[in-house]
Amino acid sequence: MPLTADVLKIDAEDVERRITWFIRDYVEKSGAEGVVIGLSGGLDSSTAAALSALALGGGRVLGLIMPESETYNPRDIEHAHLVAERFGIPVKEIDLTPILEAFWNALPIYDPEDRVSNGNVKARVRMVCLYYHANRMNRLVCGTSDKSEVMVGYFTKWGDGASDIAPLIDLYKTQVRQLARHIGVPAEIVEKPSAPNLWPGQLAEDELGISYETLDLILYGLEHFMTPREIAREANVPLELVEKVLRRWRANEHKRRPPLGVKLEYRTTGMDFRLPHLLPQQ
Amino acid sequence: MPLTADVLKIDAEDVERRITWFIRDYVEKSGAEGVVIGLSGGLDSSTAAALSALALGGGRVLGLIMPESETYNPRDIEHAHLVAERFGIPVKEIDLTPILEAFWNALPIYDPEDRVSNGNVKARVRMVCLYYHANRMNRLVCGTSDKSEVMVGYFTKWGDGASDIAPLIDLYKTQVRQLARHIGVPAEIVEKPSAPNLWPGQLAEDELGISYETLDLILYGLEHFMTPREIAREANVPLELVEKVLRRWRANEHKRRPPLGVKLEYRTTGMDFRLPHLLPQQ
Repeated sequence: MPLTADVLKIDAEDVERRITWFIRDYVEKSGAEGVVIGLSGGLDSSTAAALSALALGGGRVLGLIMPESETYNPRDIEHAHLVAERFGIPVKEIDLTPILEAFWNALPIYDPEDRVSNGNVKARVRMVCLYYHANRMNRLVCGTSDKSEVMVGYFTKWGDGASDIAPLIDLYKTQVRQLARHIGVPAEIVEKPSAPNLWPGQLAEDELGISYETLDLILYGLEHFMTPREIAREANVPLELVEKVLRRWRANEHKRRPPLGVKLEYRTTGMDFRLPHLLPQQ
Repeated sequence: MPLTADVLKIDAEDVERRITWFIRDYVEKSGAEGVVIGLSGGLDSSTAAALSALALGGGRVLGLIMPESETYNPRDIEHAHLVAERFGIPVKEIDLTPILEAFWNALPIYDPEDRVSNGNVKARVRMVCLYYHANRMNRLVCGTSDKSEVMVGYFTKWGDGASDIAPLIDLYKTQVRQLARHIGVPAEIVEKPSAPNLWPGQLAEDELGISYETLDLILYGLEHFMTPREIAREANVPLELVEKVLRRWRANEHKRRPPLGVKLEYRTTGMDFRLPHLLPQQ
């Protein structure tokens, strides 16, 4: 199977219909009044918010804009307001800086240089604020993760990865872009490069070391049971790059599932449910 | 099948062996240096910490004691130190009060009376502190949830329910108590009533409206495919109580799984992967 941009092309109208149906159906069945969503001004959150508004009406969507001093970017905030206005979504701004300061003061091993650990705190604090609004307003938290990020684990566990629904989770990043264009997300948002805003100047493609166009082809091949060698040949990319993506996919499995325990069963109903193969050889 | 305390009896030695093997195996295979665990002074966290110390050695376990002014209880902190000393676990205390104050000031719809929403913030802030230490020290977060809590959804989503491993997740609360006694958790901890500490005076059994002895029998029956009527008869409890527990179990499914999305597939490899049954009748 040749791996070109063609395999990633979506029927945007059909996808819009399926996702808006899913959001409406899930929100209704759960008895919630609507959704709360974090608006970063980026592609994924703008698209998820727009879809929520198309599904429920903008009035049942609340957008939280949650900047903090270190990564403050007026363009992003402008973009968040722009998409909110276009889809009739009310917004609130919460400055996270004092909350983060309180964490840095309280954490005995705080290191201002450890941008990954500190960035994770930011993503998790956003989750806490979203759920506070969801709790108080009887709403659900709408997540914004796309399939490319989720597969390579490029998100914060229990942070931006934590939500009640995740309408974009079966779309690769480049497919989210197609969908965004189709539903009328403003062009300046659709076209800007992905930036998680966990530290200043962070750009997704730099950090991942690969463009989303290439990453998505590799992920598509992996999801369709192609071997790394086939993918490298069909997508015309180095084998090492494919293997690196495969390793990331596997290594991050823990971020995509609930906490793991060990299955225990005892002599109960007369049968012996013990699972000796779980124990190492004695 | 008669539902008496007998069905919940565990072979504590066997269970200890399996869980400590699981912790050791998982930590080693993930390449982590050890675990971080929140110590509340209660039964579950004391037992999970003790098992971690038995599995890895106390030096590879870090206990975080995270009190806050509203639910401050010197007895609990004493108990946390007691179990840490007995199992050779180093501890750190972090006062969460200033972090919570920062949240209350920043959240535009903060209501001091909404103890459930506010309690969830406390549980999630504890998760953030645990993961900060895990990130910085290359460790895993060890969760403390037991099966009774998880089945009835008596925990905070992405809060105390969020961890990397959950060694007690297949033990009912009354079974955790048996195990705790066996491995030498101090008696004053084993015997005190369960209290999540999300607001002052909160007691699990009051809030759930049922004793853990009864709840566990009902849950055991449900897990073993007994009908509510059979459970009511065999455990000698009112049918309405069984049905209430069953409803809670079902209604909280969303807390036990990752965020839900909708499956999307397109004409790709010549096959049509669309899933029309997912759409409502037109």
